[in-house]
Amino acid sequence: MIKIGIVGGTGYTGVELLRILATHPQAKLTAITSRKEDGVPVAQMYPSLRGRVDLAFSSPDKANLNECDVVFFATPHGVAMAQAPELLANGVKVIDLAADFRMQDVAQFEKWYGMEHSCKDLLSEAVYGLPELNRDKIKSARLIGNPGCYPTTMQLGFAPLLKAGVIDAGNLIADCKSGVSGAGRKAEIGILFSETSDSFKAYGVAGHRHTPETIEQLQGLTQDKVELLFTPHLVPMIRGMHSTLYAQLTQDISNEALQALFEDAYKDEQFVDVMPFGSHPETRSTRASNMLRIALHRPGNGKHVVILVVQDNLVKGASGQAVQCMNIMFGLDESTGLQHVPVNP
Amino acid sequence: MIKIGIVGGTGYTGVELLRILATHPQAKLTAITSRKEDGVPVAQMYPSLRGRVDLAFSSPDKANLNECDVVFFATPHGVAMAQAPELLANGVKVIDLAADFRMQDVAQFEKWYGMEHSCKDLLSEAVYGLPELNRDKIKSARLIGNPGCYPTTMQLGFAPLLKAGVIDAGNLIADCKSGVSGAGRKAEIGILFSETSDSFKAYGVAGHRHTPETIEQLQGLTQDKVELLFTPHLVPMIRGMHSTLYAQLTQDISNEALQALFEDAYKDEQFVDVMPFGSHPETRSTRASNMLRIALHRPGNGKHVVILVVQDNLVKGASGQAVQCMNIMFGLDESTGLQHVPVNP
Amino acid sequence: MIKIGIVGGTGYTGVELLRILATHPQAKLTAITSRKEDGVPVAQMYPSLRGRVDLAFSSPDKANLNECDVVFFATPHGVAMAQAPELLANGVKVIDLAADFRMQDVAQFEKWYGMEHSCKDLLSEAVYGLPELNRDKIKSARLIGNPGCYPTTMQLGFAPLLKAGVIDAGNLIADCKSGVSGAGRKAEIGILFSETSDSFKAYGVAGHRHTPETIEQLQGLTQDKVELLFTPHLVPMIRGMHSTLYAQLTQDISNEALQALFEDAYKDEQFVDVMPFGSHPETRSTRASNMLRIALHRPGNGKHVVILVVQDNLVKGASGQAVQCMNIMFGLDESTGLQHVPVNP
Amino acid sequence: MIKIGIVGGTGYTGVELLRILATHPQAKLTAITSRKEDGVPVAQMYPSLRGRVDLAFSSPDKANLNECDVVFFATPHGVAMAQAPELLANGVKVIDLAADFRMQDVAQFEKWYGMEHSCKDLLSEAVYGLPELNRDKIKSARLIGNPGCYPTTMQLGFAPLLKAGVIDAGNLIADCKSGVSGAGRKAEIGILFSETSDSFKAYGVAGHRHTPETIEQLQGLTQDKVELLFTPHLVPMIRGMHSTLYAQLTQDISNEALQALFEDAYKDEQFVDVMPFGSHPETRSTRASNMLRIALHRPGNGKHVVILVVQDNLVKGASGQAVQCMNIMFGLDESTGLQHVPVNP
Repeated sequence: MIKIGIVGGTGYTGVELLRILATHPQAKLTAITSRKEDGVPVAQMYPSLRGRVDLAFSSPDKANLNECDVVFFATPHGVAMAQAPELLANGVKVIDLAADFRMQDVAQFEKWYGMEHSCKDLLSEAVYGLPELNRDKIKSARLIGNPGCYPTTMQLGFAPLLKAGVIDAGNLIADCKSGVSGAGRKAEIGILFSETSDSFKAYGVAGHRHTPETIEQLQGLTQDKVELLFTPHLVPMIRGMHSTLYAQLTQDISNEALQALFEDAYKDEQFVDVMPFGSHPETRSTRASNMLRIALHRPGNGKHVVILVVQDNLVKGASGQAVQCMNIMFGLDESTGLQHVPVNP
Repeated sequence: MIKIGIVGGTGYTGVELLRILATHPQAKLTAITSRKEDGVPVAQMYPSLRGRVDLAFSSPDKANLNECDVVFFATPHGVAMAQAPELLANGVKVIDLAADFRMQDVAQFEKWYGMEHSCKDLLSEAVYGLPELNRDKIKSARLIGNPGCYPTTMQLGFAPLLKAGVIDAGNLIADCKSGVSGAGRKAEIGILFSETSDSFKAYGVAGHRHTPETIEQLQGLTQDKVELLFTPHLVPMIRGMHSTLYAQLTQDISNEALQALFEDAYKDEQFVDVMPFGSHPETRSTRASNMLRIALHRPGNGKHVVILVVQDNLVKGASGQAVQCMNIMFGLDESTGLQHVPVNP
Repeated sequence: MIKIGIVGGTGYTGVELLRILATHPQAKLTAITSRKEDGVPVAQMYPSLRGRVDLAFSSPDKANLNECDVVFFATPHGVAMAQAPELLANGVKVIDLAADFRMQDVAQFEKWYGMEHSCKDLLSEAVYGLPELNRDKIKSARLIGNPGCYPTTMQLGFAPLLKAGVIDAGNLIADCKSGVSGAGRKAEIGILFSETSDSFKAYGVAGHRHTPETIEQLQGLTQDKVELLFTPHLVPMIRGMHSTLYAQLTQDISNEALQALFEDAYKDEQFVDVMPFGSHPETRSTRASNMLRIALHRPGNGKHVVILVVQDNLVKGASGQAVQCMNIMFGLDESTGLQHVPVNP
Repeated sequence: MIKIGIVGGTGYTGVELLRILATHPQAKLTAITSRKEDGVPVAQMYPSLRGRVDLAFSSPDKANLNECDVVFFATPHGVAMAQAPELLANGVKVIDLAADFRMQDVAQFEKWYGMEHSCKDLLSEAVYGLPELNRDKIKSARLIGNPGCYPTTMQLGFAPLLKAGVIDAGNLIADCKSGVSGAGRKAEIGILFSETSDSFKAYGVAGHRHTPETIEQLQGLTQDKVELLFTPHLVPMIRGMHSTLYAQLTQDISNEALQALFEDAYKDEQFVDVMPFGSHPETRSTRASNMLRIALHRPGNGKHVVILVVQDNLVKGASGQAVQCMNIMFGLDESTGLQHVPVNP
């Protein structure tokens, strides 16, 4: 059994980790920290976990995280980099669900996250935790920067085309839509039910933190300079993410060949489903599961390929992907504890 | 034109007042106060009012409320009672959308609202602003305590039966359901989209502030002792309130006679719609309008009468009712500025 | 492995059965019938099942249901009673999720369901599939009438009080609220998104089919005559059911004793969670799981006890309960394949 | 008073017409037809209209539409072209909310709508009813083809840029999102609450009827060949439309100059609100009103301009726009009866 600690388990990625780990056959949850909720049983804050998680939150000083095999950080940006060095020194693996270890470019990190990176020397060994594109490095990693939710969809959607060199890397557009849980569990007016229900809007159009992260990764797949226009939107639904990706073809290529690029790229992947050409995946087809689905379109058989990507932003877009990384790091079958069938309707 | 001031217009009852008053032909909005938002144009906080409301919020000291004809308080409980004496002394009428002037029983007020009543001497002249049951007093009132949203439905639903003496006043049950906007525009976890959407719950079952207010009013309609069991619930919708009222008949009375009690009671009312016996009103049939609809049922022709009442909690349940009171106080036709047709779908 | 057939798997209880059985370690899905969808892969109609269910729908004549160990009917009322005799004669167990075998009173069935019962001789051996109240009979049953969703909550909520004889059996009120999936997957205007979203209503107040079913079962728990007033409502959410039950106490009993009645009644139950006295369970705390939660209230320490009951209407209210019965019938641990942690948020 | 007839008033654009016309000071509703609902009072089908619309549906043969001043067609495609000739011959003006008279290119109409155009000779005099781009022709029109909902947003969003010649007309991308009411009031599985709530998807990516309509109109604004990639999506909300438009700049132009293009273009428009540069309009800021709002972005000051456009799909996207056209045709102030303040929250 893998002894697991969670730092900051009161948010949505935290409770989702708990939901997944509660039935993971190799996971033994040993500590979950929250300074504010010290002593409060997890199941009191989350009645959905009554009878399934017996642990109480404990303040960080009481939780003996150094005895864990792995610690997940489901915390605001900046927390993991403060605690990772000590944990690693004690032989504890670290998976950060925030942004501290996602980007190698420190200047970009500091610009977009508005804080100094306190742990630059660890960055070089930090591994970007997207298994489908980075599995080998994850296997031997001690420190994982778990991808952002939007970047997961953008990378898995653009990667086969970029690798094959059939699209213009300098003209990528990602029009992405996320459920409200992506904004976290924070007491803010803007994400109240009465503010977001029955409405739709874009946000952060001028610039969003997930752009530099995505570009850094995509740039690793091509020699051409990647330029990405990324527009996030807020959908009145709890979970779910839908990315509509636009790329311009630079070659004469058949739709069958495009489809084959994706089917080949993901043929061994348990959590990427390439749907038939021309399909319209719905976010609910991935609800509460670690599955990501992709479908290709070629409107009017023209110069654009449109890639539709859906996932559950809290699972494949966050906590499920983190557990998938853990499974790889500990030599388990990658789908261990991640066999949830999507909840529909 | 009636010169109007609004104290505390940043919440949902405040913006709803603005929506209604923006097209009220006799209303001239002259001041809206918010200490926190001093100088911010109303339309900046509420883009829905762009081009319709030109005012900016001003701090209370700058707003010359004493020159208004009427001031609405769309504030937390306790604010109106602090400012009402001076306004009244200056000849300004006051309509409080909070609870300060709803209840004559000071002890009950202080118990349920957890604050001392600072303005007891004004209570005796305060008028409970439910036009259908209290129109004459409203006409000559200087100071209105605008009813709570739930109490409006419970009173208009039970009143004809209590007045007629055909039900057991000591055994009233009100199972009520409200949209989330009823909880106000506050930065609280419990009313986030991701906490309330796609879910349903009861709250305050042990006791809710609207119970004593409702009992005080209902008791005025009957000699028998009123006992009321009131259970509020939260519905994943923005606006709308549905009260399912249960009463036990104490007389042998036909369904036609029951229906006639309601049709007679409300035959001259512009904002109460008695639907055909056995109807199932939907909250959306009142959305964004000042209409309240009632339908009666007699399951199995048994001893219980079930009264279904729907309204928009922010209109007839709050701001619309306040404007209705204003119209009465200023001798206008009661429906002036309140002719909105419900928005459906 | 239990060989399983499903008749009529295109509705919501059908796809929910598939979701559950897809990860049930002892279940081998061998046939699923749909006359209309003959030949269509299940995963084509339900992309959420891509990669998880390989079966295609087949017309009833092609599906060799007689070779199954058990057949579930997720069909409209009336289908199971036509096919059950042959299946039983071939040694196949039958679990009907519709109403054909729920009620022993044929006259009541025929009155409420508007059809003749074609299979009256089997009724006497049909077992009502509510494990918490009927486990022993389920163990040896060949034919199960799976309870309705509302009746499950009403029975588990009222049972401990009726058995203890502390409430007035002749004055039970159940004010119940269901998510829209309870209305099934039918092309009807009334359950369109634009008709039900952001609104709330009661329906069937004059009388609902679940009333006689519930009374028949509750009557078995007490010598007193049971009278039940049941009011269903439609909530703008997909899944979830919340029943607010009102009963009048006939004895002087402490809240602690009331709570103890429930804790004792369900202390060995894996799928009934008695929450602390005074709790407010949310439907989402059971989402996509087989758990049902109960909380007691005693407003004003008065004569009424209010019982709040929540469940997922498609799981404990339908398909999960059916699998729970199957587990009992085949001697498996009752929670086999039903260990889903509720999905929250 | 303008005598008004409505053909096919049982759908969402029909009931929205009724909501608007019920308070229009110059409108006298004289007939509303529905073959299926002949004799049924409108307010019985739509309780939201109780007390506001007294008319009953009548079969087309009974309704004396020839005596109307104007007839609105809120019908499926193909109905208006069958009836328009007779009405026009009788001096009745016609406004079709369907597609029959939107496109001058008959071949395109017949390809996309799958029916022969039975009324080609009238097409040449049919006027495309988008007042902001076509007001003069509307003034003198007898026959209006009311724009589609998506095309309204795409045209008003792209027009100032195309007219100014600052973008590449051959590379327009419109990623558009609509509330479910846009799909109409039809008994179809795909738009059930349980199918569309809490989910998001694209549809019609391979090709949508609104593409040729939009291209035909946009082509009139520029000499360059217009190519448009249009991707519609379904949002789990009732009303509202959000179009995210992408265009590539072909000139070096400042953001201030871009903004000025829009402010100049719409400075006299009552129903187009150009928001400050960099704003994020929400669909709810237009809910139940005829307002359309636009905001510009220039991510990274790069080569793309992103135009965000929101409207209520049933008002400015359909029925409100039709009434706006009627006002123009009859010489009324354009905002007569269209002064609704958006409903928020």
